[in-house]
Amino acid sequence: MWEEKNNKLYKKFQFKNFSEAFAFMTRVAIEAEKMDHHPLWTNVWNTVEIWLSTHDAGDIVTDKDRKLADKIEKLMEP
Amino acid sequence: MWEEKNNKLYKKFQFKNFSEAFAFMTRVAIEAEKMDHHPLWTNVWNTVEIWLSTHDAGDIVTDKDRKLADKIEKLMEP
Amino acid sequence: MWEEKNNKLYKKFQFKNFSEAFAFMTRVAIEAEKMDHHPLWTNVWNTVEIWLSTHDAGDIVTDKDRKLADKIEKLMEP
Amino acid sequence: MWEEKNNKLYKKFQFKNFSEAFAFMTRVAIEAEKMDHHPLWTNVWNTVEIWLSTHDAGDIVTDKDRKLADKIEKLMEP
Repeated sequence: MWEEKNNKLYKKFQFKNFSEAFAFMTRVAIEAEKMDHHPLWTNVWNTVEIWLSTHDAGDIVTDKDRKLADKIEKLMEP
Repeated sequence: MWEEKNNKLYKKFQFKNFSEAFAFMTRVAIEAEKMDHHPLWTNVWNTVEIWLSTHDAGDIVTDKDRKLADKIEKLMEP
Repeated sequence: MWEEKNNKLYKKFQFKNFSEAFAFMTRVAIEAEKMDHHPLWTNVWNTVEIWLSTHDAGDIVTDKDRKLADKIEKLMEP
Repeated sequence: MWEEKNNKLYKKFQFKNFSEAFAFMTRVAIEAEKMDHHPLWTNVWNTVEIWLSTHDAGDIVTDKDRKLADKIEKLMEP
């Protein structure tokens, strides 16, 4: 579940290892560029944390963030 | 199944779409660099074809190729 | 220079090593997905070869291919 | 310049755009996996921030971190 806190949509993802985490990041990178809407994200080994907000709207959560969150969720489907 | 033909180990991989195929390629790239043993590979949209052989051994299939093939197989496990 | 041959736009790219070649491929992957227009490409170590044609137009070179070729060229600029 | 602060080696990198930043991240990911030593890192659009420390040594800066920092620096050379 994505949580909305501090005017950001946030979710933490955990994977088996770094390779799987980075492959996920590559797919998120592609989606982000397709939307021209980029996350703030952090990675350490198997963990990726993502925060989404819309800078141009004054750093709040907008439909753009919800749309990117949905696209990221779809990447997790088998 | 990897096939051995023309002194190469060969396998074709198919994915749901380009994003999934390229994420797989990123993981293979990491394994290849870790072994310092690089594939000949081709991609078009959801399809990745890989040929493995060992240049330094005279372009034949060696244990290095079998080891990289095994590592690539492991990437496919859920 | 991209060459037009056999109804494809073709160019070979060479880099210092695999890591640099694969970083380039990641950038091309992003551009391809943004255009929803994907190359046929081959990599072995420091070499990337790209062939562009438009399947929906009957596998000939169209403006879509020229546009993607231009975007790939721009990636090479310092 | 990498700075040592709070028992971490830290550096901020800035690029022309997201695509260039993510290509750099892909190269760092490969080096990290080769050393089996992974950064804490953050990205937002064209900016990548990296913090290096050695968990197994009690979260302090060790030679492993200096070695990975050097490898990352080498990626920036033209």
